[in-house]
Amino acid sequence: MLAERHPALKLVFATAHEQRGQELQVGGRKLKFIATDDARLEDAELVFSALPHGASAQWVARCRAAGAMVVDLSADLRPGGAEVGLPTPPIPYGLTELMRAEVKGAGVVANPGCYPTAILLALAPLLSRGLIEADSTISVTAASGVTGAGYTLRPELLFAEVAEDFRAYAVDNNHRHLDEMTAVIRDLGAENDLVFTPHLLPVARGILATIIVRLCDAPRDPLAIWTEAYAGEPFIEVRPETPSIRDVVRRNVVRISAAVAENVRHPTLIITSAIDNLMKGAAGQAVQNANVMLGLDETLGLPA
Amino acid sequence: MLAERHPALKLVFATAHEQRGQELQVGGRKLKFIATDDARLEDAELVFSALPHGASAQWVARCRAAGAMVVDLSADLRPGGAEVGLPTPPIPYGLTELMRAEVKGAGVVANPGCYPTAILLALAPLLSRGLIEADSTISVTAASGVTGAGYTLRPELLFAEVAEDFRAYAVDNNHRHLDEMTAVIRDLGAENDLVFTPHLLPVARGILATIIVRLCDAPRDPLAIWTEAYAGEPFIEVRPETPSIRDVVRRNVVRISAAVAENVRHPTLIITSAIDNLMKGAAGQAVQNANVMLGLDETLGLPA
Amino acid sequence: MLAERHPALKLVFATAHEQRGQELQVGGRKLKFIATDDARLEDAELVFSALPHGASAQWVARCRAAGAMVVDLSADLRPGGAEVGLPTPPIPYGLTELMRAEVKGAGVVANPGCYPTAILLALAPLLSRGLIEADSTISVTAASGVTGAGYTLRPELLFAEVAEDFRAYAVDNNHRHLDEMTAVIRDLGAENDLVFTPHLLPVARGILATIIVRLCDAPRDPLAIWTEAYAGEPFIEVRPETPSIRDVVRRNVVRISAAVAENVRHPTLIITSAIDNLMKGAAGQAVQNANVMLGLDETLGLPA
Amino acid sequence: MLAERHPALKLVFATAHEQRGQELQVGGRKLKFIATDDARLEDAELVFSALPHGASAQWVARCRAAGAMVVDLSADLRPGGAEVGLPTPPIPYGLTELMRAEVKGAGVVANPGCYPTAILLALAPLLSRGLIEADSTISVTAASGVTGAGYTLRPELLFAEVAEDFRAYAVDNNHRHLDEMTAVIRDLGAENDLVFTPHLLPVARGILATIIVRLCDAPRDPLAIWTEAYAGEPFIEVRPETPSIRDVVRRNVVRISAAVAENVRHPTLIITSAIDNLMKGAAGQAVQNANVMLGLDETLGLPA
Repeated sequence: MLAERHPALKLVFATAHEQRGQELQVGGRKLKFIATDDARLEDAELVFSALPHGASAQWVARCRAAGAMVVDLSADLRPGGAEVGLPTPPIPYGLTELMRAEVKGAGVVANPGCYPTAILLALAPLLSRGLIEADSTISVTAASGVTGAGYTLRPELLFAEVAEDFRAYAVDNNHRHLDEMTAVIRDLGAENDLVFTPHLLPVARGILATIIVRLCDAPRDPLAIWTEAYAGEPFIEVRPETPSIRDVVRRNVVRISAAVAENVRHPTLIITSAIDNLMKGAAGQAVQNANVMLGLDETLGLPA
Repeated sequence: MLAERHPALKLVFATAHEQRGQELQVGGRKLKFIATDDARLEDAELVFSALPHGASAQWVARCRAAGAMVVDLSADLRPGGAEVGLPTPPIPYGLTELMRAEVKGAGVVANPGCYPTAILLALAPLLSRGLIEADSTISVTAASGVTGAGYTLRPELLFAEVAEDFRAYAVDNNHRHLDEMTAVIRDLGAENDLVFTPHLLPVARGILATIIVRLCDAPRDPLAIWTEAYAGEPFIEVRPETPSIRDVVRRNVVRISAAVAENVRHPTLIITSAIDNLMKGAAGQAVQNANVMLGLDETLGLPA
Repeated sequence: MLAERHPALKLVFATAHEQRGQELQVGGRKLKFIATDDARLEDAELVFSALPHGASAQWVARCRAAGAMVVDLSADLRPGGAEVGLPTPPIPYGLTELMRAEVKGAGVVANPGCYPTAILLALAPLLSRGLIEADSTISVTAASGVTGAGYTLRPELLFAEVAEDFRAYAVDNNHRHLDEMTAVIRDLGAENDLVFTPHLLPVARGILATIIVRLCDAPRDPLAIWTEAYAGEPFIEVRPETPSIRDVVRRNVVRISAAVAENVRHPTLIITSAIDNLMKGAAGQAVQNANVMLGLDETLGLPA
Repeated sequence: MLAERHPALKLVFATAHEQRGQELQVGGRKLKFIATDDARLEDAELVFSALPHGASAQWVARCRAAGAMVVDLSADLRPGGAEVGLPTPPIPYGLTELMRAEVKGAGVVANPGCYPTAILLALAPLLSRGLIEADSTISVTAASGVTGAGYTLRPELLFAEVAEDFRAYAVDNNHRHLDEMTAVIRDLGAENDLVFTPHLLPVARGILATIIVRLCDAPRDPLAIWTEAYAGEPFIEVRPETPSIRDVVRRNVVRISAAVAENVRHPTLIITSAIDNLMKGAAGQAVQNANVMLGLDETLGLPA
């Protein structure tokens, strides 16, 4: 657990509905999982929340009333999420690199989904500069290790099903992360169609996204788009060589590469972006947001 | 070996430069690998040829002079291949389902590459009916098991490198199969850009291609495009559910599915296509072509 | 399904409590899974039975009363099994190679477990000739792919748990197959301790057993023990090179090798034995027994 | 690299014959791999040496002459190794937990092999207390991930060979680690036969050893043998539950469990022992020895 090794955070309680009562070893100390109803919120300065779909809004309000900040890992509070008409001011979307100023002053942050983290950090510099051809389709395929689906006990996650196989899912462009990505793309000023097809990989963890976009003009130095946009960012690595899952596993980084397509008439970029879905795609990103909210060094407790 | 189990084929020689002299068990008989120079071509009615890049033209001419038909598995004789100005009549491209008439009368057939087989059989019905939006980009990502690279001893094919990893390669749209695919797409009358990005999967065998195309109009029943085009084909399976590698491994089939993308303004199809790269993507396809060339039942000796 | 491809068997019904009502494609025909209570036993000449622990005796009696022969794949009727005091004559243990005569005339056969198949076929020639040192321990470790545990939905069979891992289980010498093996070893006249430790492999299928035994005398030609005992057996392969799972997967064979240990003072053999747990370790073995019971060619419908 | 993250070690040079000239990123600094002949040994306080078989003795002498201590990771200087008649005093065998006093004052330490580390730390408490039945065989099977064989480019280490497979090797009890283990067992006073059969696992890293031994008497509390012998050891974990590779990967620990065999007449223990072959089985153990030799805290720079 990241919180346990963090030099400036101390875990005061951990909730888990189904495992409540079970013991948890945290450093030298022992804790017990408790029900959310039993949490002494007034002891907490900041709460990491990962409730099931639809349950976040009420719990976040309870945390806020008790004076705790919240990093919410559910989809409820994200752009395009279930909860419309939430407390003003609006809840910032915790892609820290894009929203650092908003995260800094926030009481609640909506932590992004794993696929959107890999894809939006790759797309943002193109979108914010208006480089993508108007009306062209942004084509994204991505592949995730099995932990992207959580540790749920589903037949299609058995070893005998996953090993030596590879398949696409949500092939009708209707993955639950689509609205989240579309909302951010629209915020960044683009009206392009986004087509996103995820795949299930026979690996434990890691996401690789491959993005094909047409540009208005062919860039002379495609990597410069990202090296300039992300100069000084501790958790973004821009590289000429194509990233692989192995490069980012157990690290709170996104690694991005891009190449101009040959053999085509319209200027086209092929961008690859890799993250560890459990780190930069979930818990690592949450700690990064917590660090910013608490005014700590943003890299504290995070393996880069 | 497929030829060995084929009820109407009998192996008369097998060549292998580096393993020549080694024994080979074929059914009850023993054969020795020989050098191509030692092959008694006059004993053969048909030769399966898989020579290294650039070596096919001369060898094929030798086979033809000795009266043998040839299924050539190299890239040399394919559309867009190394060998320009070959013997007239032109050598048919052995995507049997698209070229059956030409294969039937041919003395030489150029067996397709593995990626093109999965991708072109999926694209052909759209292209031949002119359904794809003019000037739009055909975006293809595909993932292959390690045997797609042959059994060569390269560091990036070691278990310690491949397991728990996933990466793209040839990311500049310059894979050696690109010209082959572009040539066939042009033959089918389309001028669209083709962007193709292959990936290496931690599985032994199998290819899954995911294709995103814009159409002129949204089809009411997308699957009907393929079920009509391929009615009666013994080795093409069109299914509503997304194919996975497991569905096609050890079988000489391509399995194709397609769905209309939701959440977009331009009519868009997402097509998935799976083959076993060693069967329909190589040896199985070669036997299928041989069956047609020899006037045999096309399905003879092939696991469907 | 093996029965479906068998040239002399025709499936007349298939029972499955939880999937009853679901359709089943068998060759060109369609069947529906039915409850055991609805099975028209009088239509069947032979029944393959794989009921949960404890349920076999009653069902087998019902089948017999209706005139059907039974190959029972449960542990109930095996030596050391749950059902004591079953109908006379005693039910033969269907390790076909050791019990062919008894299987031939039987109305019911108890199909062996997967581990016992690999281990007992390797041990039998040593035991029946009295070669093992009296009072020495027979040390067996074995490793099985995940399908050895059935397709049950258990957390420890998830890809995220099994991949990149390896563990022993039943480490107190109390695996449910132990009594079955001990009973056969006693039948073959040996009183040695048997210590058996199974392991879970990150592969889909296959079992490899590694057996360490002390012998009374060092054999000059260890392999001859098995080649002589199993001369002419179609499903037993004795080889100088160590077998691996890959050698036997999808085939109804056991592959056995043995070597005399160097660097020891007591004559010692190290024997390795590999099977496909779903073929020779379960369904293949069952069909082999059915072939013998029905007076058919023993190899019919079985991939060797 | 462990040395790079070690708070009290600073890398002054790195040698690599084949990669010499290549750059190496160490923390913020850049180093180049150099040939051993170009190493400025007078700059080094301690040298980690991992030369090919047979090359260590001369190099170690050169290091010593220049005043550097050496942790040697080759097999040459280990008990039973190639180099007999080395400089007096004898070189201690760096199983730190068993040889701490000898390692402390040593100028050279022979770092143990990976299999011996897992097996000898499990056997030592039994051997030193004389608990194993005289004249009985110590039966050991072990399985290792592919990195146990080094990153060498051998066909049997290709993904297409290793995945979905499992095999034994050195099945004649002649593995190159056997002499090393036998020598230590003899040093601990036992004359028992040791039979050791290693296996290749389809995982990247990790070793699990399963050991079957007969004891003079059945222990009441088998785990107490190890908890007492290793009380206070920071890198030895004794647990009632069977260890798996996942428990120890990326950590410098050995995890040991043991159970009394049921269903046997002779008191018998089944012991399981797991390490990460690259950590406690190689580099981690080397740093642990270096810490002791340099008078540092033994746990410095090591993930437990």
